[in-house]
Amino acid sequence: MSDIHFLSDLAGKASSRMVLLVMDGLGGLPHPETGMTELETARTPNLDALAAESACGLIHAIGPGITPGSGPAHMALFGYHPVRFEVGRGVLSALGVGMDLGPDDLAARVNFCTVEDGVITDRRAGRISTETNARLCDKLASIDIEGIKAEIRPEKEHRAALVFNAPGLSDRVTDTDPQKTGLAPLRCEPLPDGGEAAERTAALVNAYLDRAAEVLADEHPANMILTRGFAKLPHIPKMTELYGLRAGAIATYPMYQAVAKLVGMEVLETGPSFKDQVDALERNWGDFDYFFIHYKYTDSRGEDGDFAAKVSCIEEVDAELPRILELDPDVLVVTGDHSTPAMLKGHSWHPSPLLLRSRRERRDGVRSFGETSCLSGCLGIFSAVDLLPLMLANAGRLEKFGA
Amino acid sequence: MSDIHFLSDLAGKASSRMVLLVMDGLGGLPHPETGMTELETARTPNLDALAAESACGLIHAIGPGITPGSGPAHMALFGYHPVRFEVGRGVLSALGVGMDLGPDDLAARVNFCTVEDGVITDRRAGRISTETNARLCDKLASIDIEGIKAEIRPEKEHRAALVFNAPGLSDRVTDTDPQKTGLAPLRCEPLPDGGEAAERTAALVNAYLDRAAEVLADEHPANMILTRGFAKLPHIPKMTELYGLRAGAIATYPMYQAVAKLVGMEVLETGPSFKDQVDALERNWGDFDYFFIHYKYTDSRGEDGDFAAKVSCIEEVDAELPRILELDPDVLVVTGDHSTPAMLKGHSWHPSPLLLRSRRERRDGVRSFGETSCLSGCLGIFSAVDLLPLMLANAGRLEKFGA
Repeated sequence: MSDIHFLSDLAGKASSRMVLLVMDGLGGLPHPETGMTELETARTPNLDALAAESACGLIHAIGPGITPGSGPAHMALFGYHPVRFEVGRGVLSALGVGMDLGPDDLAARVNFCTVEDGVITDRRAGRISTETNARLCDKLASIDIEGIKAEIRPEKEHRAALVFNAPGLSDRVTDTDPQKTGLAPLRCEPLPDGGEAAERTAALVNAYLDRAAEVLADEHPANMILTRGFAKLPHIPKMTELYGLRAGAIATYPMYQAVAKLVGMEVLETGPSFKDQVDALERNWGDFDYFFIHYKYTDSRGEDGDFAAKVSCIEEVDAELPRILELDPDVLVVTGDHSTPAMLKGHSWHPSPLLLRSRRERRDGVRSFGETSCLSGCLGIFSAVDLLPLMLANAGRLEKFGA
Repeated sequence: MSDIHFLSDLAGKASSRMVLLVMDGLGGLPHPETGMTELETARTPNLDALAAESACGLIHAIGPGITPGSGPAHMALFGYHPVRFEVGRGVLSALGVGMDLGPDDLAARVNFCTVEDGVITDRRAGRISTETNARLCDKLASIDIEGIKAEIRPEKEHRAALVFNAPGLSDRVTDTDPQKTGLAPLRCEPLPDGGEAAERTAALVNAYLDRAAEVLADEHPANMILTRGFAKLPHIPKMTELYGLRAGAIATYPMYQAVAKLVGMEVLETGPSFKDQVDALERNWGDFDYFFIHYKYTDSRGEDGDFAAKVSCIEEVDAELPRILELDPDVLVVTGDHSTPAMLKGHSWHPSPLLLRSRRERRDGVRSFGETSCLSGCLGIFSAVDLLPLMLANAGRLEKFGA
């Protein structure tokens, strides 16, 4: 039942605490030499003991065969059908750097890049420092295009968020990032279904980019910007309001903070390590009903194709787990948003292993936390959008449907 | 995610080959003496070895408890929600004998039958030969009804396809086949929601059938025809276009060729045996991205209630399997469209065992190919309409959804 209003109508009050620990890209594929995935290879005594006293299963972020980006995958974990509530990349970037978006705002993801003799030679401008990025954003702030306000803010390294503000802007326009080197930056074009608003928007975007090329002309290596993922803020009812929750997010990367904010969570202060994140959980324990902890590096090392490093990341999380258990959450879920098998060096469609510990769940024969062991879990293979109802039920926060 | 347009938007290019081998009616029920199904009874060393290196599971063509016909079951396997994209029996018959249908065409399935003293004594007219069928169709071609063109073509034995052509025909009319002997052929009646068009259509159909009775009066045993499954061509976007595939079908029965054609596949020349079908696969290997191989006889022997003969059919397929493996498809799926347990002598709702071999899938503990062993497969029990996304993903042909 992925209808949020159906679920919202059943929501009741309880004094119980839920923790959702997402190890990004947790799921993997077997190493050809051992037949074991990253999670199955890692020494995880704490996760294994937890699995033994949990209900286990696997979740599809979207559906069989569909590889999700992190945005939709997290929307699903928070109880939103990820296709019905699609959030554009530009919006995620802008929210992630703390820009508030309104209905007249159009956001895009920006890469600083290097252009030589008219063609892109480096789509990331040698991964310039965040400080250089900030200085360049200051220079770009001087651009003044009639009829539109533009604000650009640095993310990390070569990435920035750009927001245009004007009435009637359309997100039905194309990227200017050709996604490969050796080509010129593309012009922003209106999409066929975007009508007059898209035509006007594309013209304004191109005027801005022409000015950006002038402003950055003397810089090196970052002498141009590429834009993609033009998007406006979608209407998303907040989970905090839908289910009467106080929710806190402990995430170190802007984009995950952004999704959390979008659904009504408060983003909590934390240091960069997983140990720091558990510190933040301890500090805030009394103030929230629902905690989302996002651990990024399992995904990063999977994307690198570094099987052993991903194994180490999983072990790092495992080592801190006892501190979470000491807080004795009423509902504790450990899972991934999607799989990122080191063997594929990228996101994949394979379902994510999941454990859910609560006093109100069934048990199963699962005695270790892994992709294969979770197959015999009592939760089966299910859709990630159904996780939130399961958590709320176990937290004593969902009423009966019907009499 | 069974929305074809969602999936189509994610489709990308790759040079990879997929093979879908459908053993019609593959799934079964346990023999009371052994507790093993047809597939579990068969000696299948090749399928078992393949299962051991595949991801296994079971699929529901439509859903628990729903017994599908072959048409909807195959639509699901090709990625079309079988209820949303319903194809009438008449259309399948007509396409199966090579009749092209347009918007003014109304197609029906025909049985030659025997009528004595006004009641049907044999619904299949003693299964007349296909040659006799063709001769009778020639006789029926002389029928001339004002305001409508009619064309009838032989299928196999007592079956034929009948297509009426006139503007504004309706498919909201009833069958004239009462589905049992001892009754008179029924009159074609308009359905209540069919309006004036259905009334006019029923009158034309009845006029045709009255003339058919006159034309066939001196024949024996085939002295009348029964019609059912009146249907018009639905609008079905072709899978070849949706996903950018070149797809070839290797099927020996008209109806499966028809469904394949309907979704954009090219029907490839093949002899009647499974060995011939694998020959056809080898001959065409370089020219297509996706092959659908349909093996009919597992279903036929299941319908006959002949457990041992169905076992032999499965063994016949198993023996040819190494030749398919030698072609080294990137994705190989072996499954059924639905179950046809010999114990039930007909189609059933039980999910079909499935194996999927690809370099990009997880492994599981399944070491033999059977209904019970596949229960512990890593694909779980899923909906047949999700098979195509899974195949495309494994073939490297689906982009990520969202960022």
